Amino acid sequence: MLLNIERLNEMMARHGLDAIVATLPENVTYSSGYWALSQWVRRGPQSYVLIPAPGRGDPAIIATTSLLDQLADQDDVWISKVYRYGFFSVEQTSGVTLDALDQRQLELYQLRDHGTAINALCTAINDCGLGECVIGLDELGLMPGNFEEIRARLPNANVKPALEIFRTVRAVKTPEEVNRLRRAAQIAEQSIASALEIAKPGVSERELGLAFHERTAREGGYPVLGCIGSGPRSAMPNVEPGDRKLKYGDVIRFDVGGRYQHYRADISRIAVLGEPTDRIRQYHRALHVGVLTALEMIRPGVKTSDVFEAAVKAVQREGIPHYKRSHVGHGIGIDGYDVPNLTPSSTVVIEEGMTLCVETPYYELGSWGLQVEDMIVVRRDGIESLMSTDGALNILDR
Amino acid sequence: MLLNIERLNEMMARHGLDAIVATLPENVTYSSGYWALSQWVRRGPQSYVLIPAPGRGDPAIIATTSLLDQLADQDDVWISKVYRYGFFSVEQTSGVTLDALDQRQLELYQLRDHGTAINALCTAINDCGLGECVIGLDELGLMPGNFEEIRARLPNANVKPALEIFRTVRAVKTPEEVNRLRRAAQIAEQSIASALEIAKPGVSERELGLAFHERTAREGGYPVLGCIGSGPRSAMPNVEPGDRKLKYGDVIRFDVGGRYQHYRADISRIAVLGEPTDRIRQYHRALHVGVLTALEMIRPGVKTSDVFEAAVKAVQREGIPHYKRSHVGHGIGIDGYDVPNLTPSSTVVIEEGMTLCVETPYYELGSWGLQVEDMIVVRRDGIESLMSTDGALNILDR
Repeated sequence: MLLNIERLNEMMARHGLDAIVATLPENVTYSSGYWALSQWVRRGPQSYVLIPAPGRGDPAIIATTSLLDQLADQDDVWISKVYRYGFFSVEQTSGVTLDALDQRQLELYQLRDHGTAINALCTAINDCGLGECVIGLDELGLMPGNFEEIRARLPNANVKPALEIFRTVRAVKTPEEVNRLRRAAQIAEQSIASALEIAKPGVSERELGLAFHERTAREGGYPVLGCIGSGPRSAMPNVEPGDRKLKYGDVIRFDVGGRYQHYRADISRIAVLGEPTDRIRQYHRALHVGVLTALEMIRPGVKTSDVFEAAVKAVQREGIPHYKRSHVGHGIGIDGYDVPNLTPSSTVVIEEGMTLCVETPYYELGSWGLQVEDMIVVRRDGIESLMSTDGALNILDR
Repeated sequence: MLLNIERLNEMMARHGLDAIVATLPENVTYSSGYWALSQWVRRGPQSYVLIPAPGRGDPAIIATTSLLDQLADQDDVWISKVYRYGFFSVEQTSGVTLDALDQRQLELYQLRDHGTAINALCTAINDCGLGECVIGLDELGLMPGNFEEIRARLPNANVKPALEIFRTVRAVKTPEEVNRLRRAAQIAEQSIASALEIAKPGVSERELGLAFHERTAREGGYPVLGCIGSGPRSAMPNVEPGDRKLKYGDVIRFDVGGRYQHYRADISRIAVLGEPTDRIRQYHRALHVGVLTALEMIRPGVKTSDVFEAAVKAVQREGIPHYKRSHVGHGIGIDGYDVPNLTPSSTVVIEEGMTLCVETPYYELGSWGLQVEDMIVVRRDGIESLMSTDGALNILDR
């Protein structure tokens, strides 16, 4: 299961919630396993998940009729109670045998139509007897005015924003989530390898980008992040592969990662075409030591702000005295920026099961950008890397 | 230019607006050419575009400091005035020569930091002398509470929701948008061809899906929609490719399309492995005639509801008497569902330059799904197809 249900129940108890409602695509998929296509590819379409506290009723999915087929077909879905809304036409011919999947679709299509998403949600809440309770409502996936409308429709309930609760719950991953993140990281590594295979003078960034994303797609990933820059363009933090052609001596910076079974990767590796200068070697080594210092330090109970400080100081000491950063990493999961952020002001303490991107990027206009970024999971005594390569410079001898 | 500025100015005049503000990723990219990575891949990050009515001041982009490199590098960006917000560290070493791109980045990094997105936006509005004017504010890209905060920060302005204005403007495409949509459609067709190349008994849906997305990535597209189902699974409207292996006689339904230079494709084609039954031929032909009937009818001045009625009646008359649908198509552009929707209740009249997906899907549980969906652009006297294949059945003899 994607959802860390113990942690969700604990958080609901801590915040005095009788139930919680997911509305953001990430939170809907995370809490129910239901990946509702339309809300993932554009803003507007609504799907929700209602999860009552233990003993307060059964969880339910609120889904548009036109996406019920996905609900029937997806192995990740663990919630069977469904409230549907909206008209959609699927036919049936008498005499045709239906298998279990078709039967389940038929059952779902035959549920009562609740008209609108909000109506379906409020009915689900009232059906659980939660109409006079404290309900945490994820505020970010709703349409403007929906939050107020739900409050008005449930006048005896206490409806509170709950986005941050979902983010806190999601910070500690289940084993299934870690498996997906590991595979996502490794697809990104394989995709870097495919791009580097064709890297030589005269090849364009765009060609590297195509090779990168093609490999991601071939491995079953969805391309998302593909910042690949060469020479001075590698100093652009969000560089999109362009027409520039590689030359001897170029730095090639990858800050990349797709989505695998809904879970994100975000890693960084550096290659140099030919012999790196001493300054590149020195700066890259300092950045790499910064990441390794953070990784050695990360374990349950450590403050994220201390990790930030240690990583930045290591980079400064090892060769970039003027090194400055806003963060040295962030959580990763079904969202590319999960809790925690490794910033100087963060008050979050690291917990077992958190998955982190740890990174020390350095961007120098007119010169190059260098970066090491690894994905790791926090274990009882330290970290387990999700990577199969290390952050060393890739020196391409072509 | 992506933006249809004449139409935007006309709509601002019609609604009495002195300026309009884009907040949704689609509207930001559409109105300025600025594709701000972070707001496209997750919810939360904010970028805005302020466009005053003619004579009321210069347009401006509100961008986070960490994405200014994209603003400097993207050829689509036509707005030079920028308000930045937030801390981000990029270094510069003395003595290093900066090219024009680096110089532009440096200029942008050296702009004053306005702290927050809302503060930057309100400053931009006040700098234009628009603080007491009527401002249309795209409400869907904002965070909860931002709309009210902007109203409070501009107490003498009349701030109105403007999402629907952007949607109406975007409905009539510029030539550059049509070119991108044509290429997006053709990448989807090429990707179907790549999947069909490997289709034979024993090959799984998943393998077809990988071949499809891999081709999309190779052609420079980003995979988005990849509904590919076989046999009874082809009747699932949003089928995700699964483990089912192809058998002789199977229908294979594609409802697919990626993104090319930010513009979407959404097309449908059907293949049959071996000889189709008479019922498949008859039903598919009826659906195809439904689309062709709509395409013959579509031209400026025609009501979308009349197109709906004609298409559905044609399908019913040609062999599926019980055919029912909620719509027979929709606009397509930077969003997969642009204005108009081809529904029975739509009051929109078709205009020259609209780009439409015209479709007549039919889903029969336990049997199969069949569908024809073409992308077209409305021209002065009728339509121009954006497709390079027709909607005929692909009969695979293997």
